[in-house]
Amino acid sequence: MARPVTLFTGQWADLPVEELAAKAGTWGFDGLELACWGDHFEVDKALADSGYVDSRRDILERNGLQVHAIGAHLVGQCVCDPIDERHRAILPPEVWGNGEPEGVLQRAAERLKDTARAATLLGVDQVNGFTGSSVWHLLYSFPPNDFDEVERGYQDFADRRPEFGLNFDPSHFAHQFLDSAAFVEAFADRIYHVHVKDSRKTLDGRKSILASHLDFGEAARGWDFVSPGHGDVDFESLFRALNRIGYTGPLSIEWEDSGMDRDWGAPDALAFVRRTDFAPSAIAFDAAMQRSGR
Amino acid sequence: MARPVTLFTGQWADLPVEELAAKAGTWGFDGLELACWGDHFEVDKALADSGYVDSRRDILERNGLQVHAIGAHLVGQCVCDPIDERHRAILPPEVWGNGEPEGVLQRAAERLKDTARAATLLGVDQVNGFTGSSVWHLLYSFPPNDFDEVERGYQDFADRRPEFGLNFDPSHFAHQFLDSAAFVEAFADRIYHVHVKDSRKTLDGRKSILASHLDFGEAARGWDFVSPGHGDVDFESLFRALNRIGYTGPLSIEWEDSGMDRDWGAPDALAFVRRTDFAPSAIAFDAAMQRSGR
Amino acid sequence: MARPVTLFTGQWADLPVEELAAKAGTWGFDGLELACWGDHFEVDKALADSGYVDSRRDILERNGLQVHAIGAHLVGQCVCDPIDERHRAILPPEVWGNGEPEGVLQRAAERLKDTARAATLLGVDQVNGFTGSSVWHLLYSFPPNDFDEVERGYQDFADRRPEFGLNFDPSHFAHQFLDSAAFVEAFADRIYHVHVKDSRKTLDGRKSILASHLDFGEAARGWDFVSPGHGDVDFESLFRALNRIGYTGPLSIEWEDSGMDRDWGAPDALAFVRRTDFAPSAIAFDAAMQRSGR
Amino acid sequence: MARPVTLFTGQWADLPVEELAAKAGTWGFDGLELACWGDHFEVDKALADSGYVDSRRDILERNGLQVHAIGAHLVGQCVCDPIDERHRAILPPEVWGNGEPEGVLQRAAERLKDTARAATLLGVDQVNGFTGSSVWHLLYSFPPNDFDEVERGYQDFADRRPEFGLNFDPSHFAHQFLDSAAFVEAFADRIYHVHVKDSRKTLDGRKSILASHLDFGEAARGWDFVSPGHGDVDFESLFRALNRIGYTGPLSIEWEDSGMDRDWGAPDALAFVRRTDFAPSAIAFDAAMQRSGR
Amino acid sequence: MARPVTLFTGQWADLPVEELAAKAGTWGFDGLELACWGDHFEVDKALADSGYVDSRRDILERNGLQVHAIGAHLVGQCVCDPIDERHRAILPPEVWGNGEPEGVLQRAAERLKDTARAATLLGVDQVNGFTGSSVWHLLYSFPPNDFDEVERGYQDFADRRPEFGLNFDPSHFAHQFLDSAAFVEAFADRIYHVHVKDSRKTLDGRKSILASHLDFGEAARGWDFVSPGHGDVDFESLFRALNRIGYTGPLSIEWEDSGMDRDWGAPDALAFVRRTDFAPSAIAFDAAMQRSGR
Amino acid sequence: MARPVTLFTGQWADLPVEELAAKAGTWGFDGLELACWGDHFEVDKALADSGYVDSRRDILERNGLQVHAIGAHLVGQCVCDPIDERHRAILPPEVWGNGEPEGVLQRAAERLKDTARAATLLGVDQVNGFTGSSVWHLLYSFPPNDFDEVERGYQDFADRRPEFGLNFDPSHFAHQFLDSAAFVEAFADRIYHVHVKDSRKTLDGRKSILASHLDFGEAARGWDFVSPGHGDVDFESLFRALNRIGYTGPLSIEWEDSGMDRDWGAPDALAFVRRTDFAPSAIAFDAAMQRSGR
Repeated sequence: MARPVTLFTGQWADLPVEELAAKAGTWGFDGLELACWGDHFEVDKALADSGYVDSRRDILERNGLQVHAIGAHLVGQCVCDPIDERHRAILPPEVWGNGEPEGVLQRAAERLKDTARAATLLGVDQVNGFTGSSVWHLLYSFPPNDFDEVERGYQDFADRRPEFGLNFDPSHFAHQFLDSAAFVEAFADRIYHVHVKDSRKTLDGRKSILASHLDFGEAARGWDFVSPGHGDVDFESLFRALNRIGYTGPLSIEWEDSGMDRDWGAPDALAFVRRTDFAPSAIAFDAAMQRSGR
Repeated sequence: MARPVTLFTGQWADLPVEELAAKAGTWGFDGLELACWGDHFEVDKALADSGYVDSRRDILERNGLQVHAIGAHLVGQCVCDPIDERHRAILPPEVWGNGEPEGVLQRAAERLKDTARAATLLGVDQVNGFTGSSVWHLLYSFPPNDFDEVERGYQDFADRRPEFGLNFDPSHFAHQFLDSAAFVEAFADRIYHVHVKDSRKTLDGRKSILASHLDFGEAARGWDFVSPGHGDVDFESLFRALNRIGYTGPLSIEWEDSGMDRDWGAPDALAFVRRTDFAPSAIAFDAAMQRSGR
Repeated sequence: MARPVTLFTGQWADLPVEELAAKAGTWGFDGLELACWGDHFEVDKALADSGYVDSRRDILERNGLQVHAIGAHLVGQCVCDPIDERHRAILPPEVWGNGEPEGVLQRAAERLKDTARAATLLGVDQVNGFTGSSVWHLLYSFPPNDFDEVERGYQDFADRRPEFGLNFDPSHFAHQFLDSAAFVEAFADRIYHVHVKDSRKTLDGRKSILASHLDFGEAARGWDFVSPGHGDVDFESLFRALNRIGYTGPLSIEWEDSGMDRDWGAPDALAFVRRTDFAPSAIAFDAAMQRSGR
Repeated sequence: MARPVTLFTGQWADLPVEELAAKAGTWGFDGLELACWGDHFEVDKALADSGYVDSRRDILERNGLQVHAIGAHLVGQCVCDPIDERHRAILPPEVWGNGEPEGVLQRAAERLKDTARAATLLGVDQVNGFTGSSVWHLLYSFPPNDFDEVERGYQDFADRRPEFGLNFDPSHFAHQFLDSAAFVEAFADRIYHVHVKDSRKTLDGRKSILASHLDFGEAARGWDFVSPGHGDVDFESLFRALNRIGYTGPLSIEWEDSGMDRDWGAPDALAFVRRTDFAPSAIAFDAAMQRSGR
Repeated sequence: MARPVTLFTGQWADLPVEELAAKAGTWGFDGLELACWGDHFEVDKALADSGYVDSRRDILERNGLQVHAIGAHLVGQCVCDPIDERHRAILPPEVWGNGEPEGVLQRAAERLKDTARAATLLGVDQVNGFTGSSVWHLLYSFPPNDFDEVERGYQDFADRRPEFGLNFDPSHFAHQFLDSAAFVEAFADRIYHVHVKDSRKTLDGRKSILASHLDFGEAARGWDFVSPGHGDVDFESLFRALNRIGYTGPLSIEWEDSGMDRDWGAPDALAFVRRTDFAPSAIAFDAAMQRSGR
Repeated sequence: MARPVTLFTGQWADLPVEELAAKAGTWGFDGLELACWGDHFEVDKALADSGYVDSRRDILERNGLQVHAIGAHLVGQCVCDPIDERHRAILPPEVWGNGEPEGVLQRAAERLKDTARAATLLGVDQVNGFTGSSVWHLLYSFPPNDFDEVERGYQDFADRRPEFGLNFDPSHFAHQFLDSAAFVEAFADRIYHVHVKDSRKTLDGRKSILASHLDFGEAARGWDFVSPGHGDVDFESLFRALNRIGYTGPLSIEWEDSGMDRDWGAPDALAFVRRTDFAPSAIAFDAAMQRSGR
């Protein structure tokens, strides 16, 4: 059997989870990956109120939906980022507080630990998210970077966080010209979860692969996120690689396409995954010929 | 909601419009773009007989079909072309007359004006067609062209015909290596109607992009028209561009494929457009994340 | 009408033909191409027992299936190959005998003649297969080949076997960078049967197009067979070429994909062929415009 | 030894042949292909004045230059073209006369015959040129062409002009996506002379391969002629093909590049040909190994 | 005549300018673009000591070298950048001071004004450099950027700095998939100076176009700077575009290739530019044919 | 300094080594890689006659040539190959003997050991060659191979022959779509010698990448060996990789091009290597900027 297909709710947080679950159930999804914002999965309530987690489970069950993971991208982003004014918009007020960077980092870290606790109450052992990054702004080395420091940072992270794995998302690989299938095979034991998201290059010599300080959805960008199957991601190769490494977890559609109506797009994406994902073979065909020959 | 999908009837004029409307309705089209030849939409009858236009409307309604535009390609072609023997085959006898070029041009122009009048009677404000061209044969500049004269011709046309817009057809762009989406965005205010038609390059070093004086359908040509979705047109980009410019008019399938049974192809083309065309988004996704975070 | 779609049973010979026929009928195939191994079509029984052929026909009919051809690839391979230990695995014991090469070749040739006789009893005039090859190992000319001898071999084959035609299989062309459509048009009068099979290149500079002595299904190969529609074969062009040469025989899916569950793959392949194969046109479209203009 | 490299003088006809011959000799050319316009090779004088041909030969010899062919492109173009106002600019006044088309065609044909006679006096048996074309304007078949008539025209030409061969010029093939080497091998016995000229595609989605009624040298064109070695022509393959068919005639540089100073370009082109053209091998290398092994 | 070719001295600042000028003169350069670091062009000395500028001019003249521009990249970078520890390494101690950001910015701005004054004393009206950027770190919009603020910043710069032009360097365009020639034509009136530098993509699915926080010269990067002519920059198109816009200033080689010996590379780069850059044509070739025809 | 460039003499064995050495010295080669056939380096004489080795050395010295390696490709090929009639042509009569395979293998192995002894006498510690292969004919696994046996063979070779290294030749990689630079970096410690040879794909849909049992030099092949610089090998990347791994040995041109006169080709190849190979840098450029800034 092919893998379960879930919908990540982060881009639908303007809708009550009740309404979204009804849609997703009707469209035929197998489950939801609940975002920790909007009313989808509220960490503070989950820890404070023993009935809250049951209420979420109930909504899912009524719509025939499973839950394999929750998404804590917004708070997570603020754990390692250099904090600036932009972070205020993605944080709950109590985590932002007075916005003083060191305090924000600490409160975000605490909230993330709480998120893991709340996930456990929901019976889920996977929390997805970003970590933010203290070296992202060093992307281009001028003035020249101290690369030893960058390397020490990587090593420090690897040493202190052995429990971290990857929520693999091929949309970020496609516009970097990276081979998702090769990556998945190289880091097989660290693929903990998979996001199905796509991106599309529209390079014509006038649009930069770096996207030129233009917002998502602007026609002048050189790449953008699009509904799965409408972009450059080679899902055929990716799903074959996931089969080879034995990944049986969910394919969670993180639906994001600035040019498409999402109620048209989500079921289109689901249909795409259903017809593109397949279970691996248990048979070597020439061997079959061989046996039958006898 | 996505755009209405219509079928241009020009390539089916050997069938009575009654028969074609029944097929199109069954296949699920939203409407027809009636050709002004065969019995589909006869300009002279429409102007002469007050019941004629009602009879066309009635046929459409019985089959659940709308009409957004009519097609006057054949007579239109004879308004600016240098007239030669080939034009006899595409003109009604009374427009061809004795075939003397100047007279043909004038009668064709009159008939085109009548077509606009007849369209108005049908409640349609869009007449599609070609204009012919007095400079097409100057395509390759040898003996050297007088390019100032060509430019003056373009300017004269622009000055005298401000009401002209474009019936955009991407099939003519694909084999010229032109970017349909970029064109549509550049000439956004002139996109009055859209034909969905496809073309396909089969270049292998032995077939020329110029098609070598070979008829449509010949295997030795370097490109040919094909059923939508079977060729090189990037409809994903085109439809996104039409969304960006706010085009909400019909996508009219001009079905033409010398290698395919048209009764197989027309519903295949309709299904292709239905699964490829989509309505634009009203939401910016990161903004959504932003709002929900608060 | 489009061509009948059959399933070649060779890669399913571990299943009884009864069970496979039931599956194929349910999936919607038009017929089976029976392999001469497993219990699918046993040449010796067909010749020995007058009821055997009826029993096969009966199984097919009960499942709404036709038969246009049978497949004798395994025994056929041993008619011209230099015999080595590997051939034991693909031959019935009585043909392998003591494995002495000259005897194997003769017994395989006799069995192939019997296969033709058995096919006739089944009402089928097409036997598919390989012939093996006595020059395959000369693929790379070092030490330098005697190319005149190779050429004489080809000529000898052409002289002695005028009745041979091609069971055209595009999967072997794709990874050789050969143009299936061009081949089909060049050898139009020798296309006797068509296998629908696909192959896919995964070249990344570390995987060789020669596949490096790696088994089918290994990720490190540079190409592999895949389910039709999942690879590099240009079926659009191939089916158009088959239309042009007037081929009306079966499209027989030889399903082989080491990375896909075959019960998922076979109906996926059938659906692919149904939506990709189409009947040719009887109309020249501009001519239609021409006639209608009058 | 590699082939002689000559310079076609047609694009330098604003210079007296004396001046041009001095330049070409200095640059190191092996010869000139004299154009029949300017003062380079005047057909009427050659026939009228017995000293004229000697004077041309003398100029060449003084500069160490050979002559293998003459070029009659301008008058030749007017032999089959539909004559219009543009032809006046490329014809001598006595051939244009009153410009009445039928008379122009006849006078151009007579002049071309004279050109052959004059060439013979110069000791040259090759006259290059265009023929013009009565079907060029039928390039796009709408209104639909009578293709039988086109075909009859080709046949008529083939029947009446068995002595015609090709002055092969790859620059016209490159932007048509045609394979010059394949053509040369297919029409080996008709390659009478070779022009070395290059063209370059600058397609970016906004520039058409048809060049859009824009003059040579305009940046907005999708292709243009460029100095040899600066464009898309695969001269490596072409020269190898010329070696295979045994062509030993001149490689005549027809230098034309609207963006380059011609006095910089002509010696650059000569250097390009000298380092790219090479003589064929008389040895099969593995055979060499074979023989030496003994 | 083609454009003068100069060598930017910034990457050679470990050598005394005397030694470098001797090398550059020997290699055949037309001039130097002096860097304002090392002892090449010291702004403070130029302003303080009236003999200093003469001493630089003298060194150049003795080696047959011109000077068209000076380079102030290091101090310039610190005018708009958010200052961090990395800037200490590229600044003179007196500009860095105590490293307090606001003070650094002001001292850098003052030093840049002095640089313009010193350039004037040298008789040069072009100062090249970077400006640094206060928005570079907003390259990826997450947390979501305030794009209006970015836009206001661009507008503010445009309003306040009308005298700024571009020192066009195609090496930064190539790995962004941008078309240098198209840019140069679009911003023709702002191309004040040109750097000849190249970059090379080595994408293989395992190397990112973003270069992955790896230092220049690391084999694992997806792109890197290379000696001119060894990379992806289309200099043919760029130089043609510079011809079209009438740029007659220097082509200044900014030589940087982590994998090549610079004493091998600099003359190789010079030779590359000499054989690739050419003067434009003053003649339209078909027009030439036209005129000569008369 | 760049690497020494030598000429492998195997393809010139029809010439006496005296004559070849004179040519190579004149062309400017740094040395010869002597083949063990023809009279170039005769193993039996070298071992039997103490003056023979001196005579070879003398010929080299008189022409200013070094020797870094000798080539034993022909005898070497017969050490592991399944011997057939073709091997007779590449072996000396005394090694071929009566052609009985087992005896041939043993005598070839003995001769190869003698070759190593003779090389030592010449002061050379590198013997290049092929080994032949007992699994090459298993290239395509049908009948299905026993891949465990293939693997055991590789392991056995690895265990028994730790002293073997690679004479890296990129021409065999190019038509297999393999990345020479990536290979060289992966097997850095096994690159003992480098052959400079090129190959060229001429795939057009009618020519197979497998070359179709056609002799080298046939136009219908899909790839062929060509003179260095005339093919698909990315020497820029290869030489950069050799720089990175610190390879300082010879670049030995194995010149083989069935379509080119070898006396034209060899110096052309030498010039190509001289202008393409370069020494690595000892400087990191931004670091240079950094230091100079202080």
